[in-house]
Amino acid sequence: MGYSEATKRFLLAAKHAEINALKRLLANCQVVNSISVFIHQLQKERGTSNIFLASRCERFTKQRTEQILQSVLAEDFLRSQFKTQYLIGHDTADNMRLLNSISIALQGMDNLPVLRHKIDSLAISPLNSSQAYCRLVAGLLNVVFEAADVASDPAITRILVAMFNFMQGKEYTGQERAWGAIGFAETHFNQELCERLEQLQVAQRNCFQIFLEFASQSDKQLWLELETSTPMKSIEQMRNMIRKLVDGSPISAEISEVWYEVATQRINQMHVMEESIAETLVNLANKRVKQASAELCHHNKRLKMFANLTESDDSSFSMLFDSAMPGLRGAENLSELDLDASNKLNVSHSFYDLLRDQSKHIKKMADELNDVKRALTEQKTIDRARLLMMEQLKLSEAEAYRLLQKRAMDNNIRIAEMADLIVKATSSNQSAIYKAKLQQMSM
Amino acid sequence: MGYSEATKRFLLAAKHAEINALKRLLANCQVVNSISVFIHQLQKERGTSNIFLASRCERFTKQRTEQILQSVLAEDFLRSQFKTQYLIGHDTADNMRLLNSISIALQGMDNLPVLRHKIDSLAISPLNSSQAYCRLVAGLLNVVFEAADVASDPAITRILVAMFNFMQGKEYTGQERAWGAIGFAETHFNQELCERLEQLQVAQRNCFQIFLEFASQSDKQLWLELETSTPMKSIEQMRNMIRKLVDGSPISAEISEVWYEVATQRINQMHVMEESIAETLVNLANKRVKQASAELCHHNKRLKMFANLTESDDSSFSMLFDSAMPGLRGAENLSELDLDASNKLNVSHSFYDLLRDQSKHIKKMADELNDVKRALTEQKTIDRARLLMMEQLKLSEAEAYRLLQKRAMDNNIRIAEMADLIVKATSSNQSAIYKAKLQQMSM
Repeated sequence: MGYSEATKRFLLAAKHAEINALKRLLANCQVVNSISVFIHQLQKERGTSNIFLASRCERFTKQRTEQILQSVLAEDFLRSQFKTQYLIGHDTADNMRLLNSISIALQGMDNLPVLRHKIDSLAISPLNSSQAYCRLVAGLLNVVFEAADVASDPAITRILVAMFNFMQGKEYTGQERAWGAIGFAETHFNQELCERLEQLQVAQRNCFQIFLEFASQSDKQLWLELETSTPMKSIEQMRNMIRKLVDGSPISAEISEVWYEVATQRINQMHVMEESIAETLVNLANKRVKQASAELCHHNKRLKMFANLTESDDSSFSMLFDSAMPGLRGAENLSELDLDASNKLNVSHSFYDLLRDQSKHIKKMADELNDVKRALTEQKTIDRARLLMMEQLKLSEAEAYRLLQKRAMDNNIRIAEMADLIVKATSSNQSAIYKAKLQQMSM
Repeated sequence: MGYSEATKRFLLAAKHAEINALKRLLANCQVVNSISVFIHQLQKERGTSNIFLASRCERFTKQRTEQILQSVLAEDFLRSQFKTQYLIGHDTADNMRLLNSISIALQGMDNLPVLRHKIDSLAISPLNSSQAYCRLVAGLLNVVFEAADVASDPAITRILVAMFNFMQGKEYTGQERAWGAIGFAETHFNQELCERLEQLQVAQRNCFQIFLEFASQSDKQLWLELETSTPMKSIEQMRNMIRKLVDGSPISAEISEVWYEVATQRINQMHVMEESIAETLVNLANKRVKQASAELCHHNKRLKMFANLTESDDSSFSMLFDSAMPGLRGAENLSELDLDASNKLNVSHSFYDLLRDQSKHIKKMADELNDVKRALTEQKTIDRARLLMMEQLKLSEAEAYRLLQKRAMDNNIRIAEMADLIVKATSSNQSAIYKAKLQQMSM
């Protein structure tokens, strides 16, 4: 047969490993789905709580009670998902970073009753309450990011990256709603508040741009329709109005309700879309599990067939001359000398064929995955550069980000490229080279 | 207590996942060790087989028989390692790419008896025999590369990257020995052969340069001693001699034995060093498993302690205002507004402390791992760029690599950077940008 039992077992083990990874990925996608539902409820709870606090218990008491009920339902469902997907059996739970991010998110959720109690008794300002909800949402979004980062399938990873950026964009939209509401409630805007709103708009655009890079054609279409829908047009009008109020001119507090209403309409539209992306995600993961399982069946059938064949030794022997098989890395292979031997290779329907097909499949997946993960790596690099700048230049988070943005613009490169240079200049083996490069740039 | 049972379980699950990953890594390190032993035997078998073939069974008959015995012993040990580490139990076997690379290496090993039989009966040329052994070694080195690529611990990954590059450099040294021996045996060198030898020397330098970047201080020291030892000096002298023979001047065939002898001394020195790196590797992996297990014990002790404490709710509640916890990605957090709340955070020896420590530990590991993996990513990118150039420009493997090298030199950038541009221009989302960049460069 030209191959040993062990060789066959490793070929099958690789396929089993792929299936197991896809099953874990499916579990992660289901969890991401539940997280998106819970975040949506938290965003609504943040809004009603703000109005409740700002009105000193006068308004939204009933709405808030009802909303908390909804939040608790979504939270319970998410908690049960966490348990069944990761804690029952230990085969599914193998990623340190994902599990740790869940622990952080859960610890935040454990504190929700305390937060609600403080709101009940007006023992917290609307600002601090908002802040706490924001951090809770950020902790949950971090779980989605880790789920995308550990994903091993390029097609699923693409949608996870799109989903993560969509969810984050939606959260910035929610924050814009909250800050806008504060301005209208106070009957005037100032420069600081206007700048903050502009920044939130930039952050939304960044997120949705990455979303569009990775979204499916139909999701892109849906998004473009959303961008030209009535709520979006109303928001643009009110954004323009706010820009003109930067000098502190007064505005009627009643507009607050209009602002809140249209922003909520938009966020609800986003949530509908989010649900559709989540559905695509879970369906695709299911499909990929089935596909890989069918491939395993096919492998087994072909292997049974080969066992009954008596191949000539030469056909599988020729693999030792096949330049499609892995060669040495990072330098030339010197293998083209023997093209004769390699051209003889034409062993159709052999075990070696199977092995070669699987290797090509794995190589293709790894390359595609690499390309998709660039987007995640860039987001991680921007985070790292920002932290480094905060430490070294004693800047706040926002100052560091603005400086990073400015330096990238001044040098006509993307933020991610600027961040990469800064990180490399600090921690890479070629740090001297990158330090020199940075010094040459306009700063 | 301020945290739920589930939160605690996920904190512990993350630690368990770390320990499991380290145990798998330890298994991989042991396999890498066995691979290095087997490759060393295959390199010797390639050498003796060449002389046996070139002398048409007159020389090295006994040496070759003895050498095959050694190779078979090393192969049997490696095969048993593969089985015990990856096929018994399924918990350890979870990486598709690693398992597939083992299947490829095994299929090559399955064909060793056929290859030996062809050599016995002089049914293969020395060139083709060499070629087959080279591909076998390349398949095994690919397993080492995958083992480095799946590693999750930065310190261990560093040594795996150093080890992989050392092993690959040693293989190029072995190939230089083989090609040099052919020249001396034929009593003259030509330009093609001289170029090939130069390329192999460049390839060695590239490998050992990466090795030096990642090796421990003591391994670096060992290597520098090797570089100034007697065999290396003799090799440099003979390399100079060969360079002068490029015009085809005749040289006594007897020098072949001297060349073979000093090159073998050098390769044996390298093998001793390889064994020492492998030992460091296995020791470090063992140490890291013990360390992480001790950390888990410590976690459990602290958790028992917390269970008996009655913390005020506020201390863990303050996590919702802690900017050290994950925030939104790729844009500013807007969280510095509430520095007051965040400064209040001073809950020593609490559950939240434990969670924060573990998160810092994981973040640090992930960042460091990212830096070490750059080297591997660069090697993969060079491979991809070379394949793309082979396809698009219809070049051979060697031509593609030389063109890549030349373009990098002409533009004064590293090969890896040139390769990255080529890959991005083909497959990234910003391909148009990178295509334009390539067009601006001198080609």
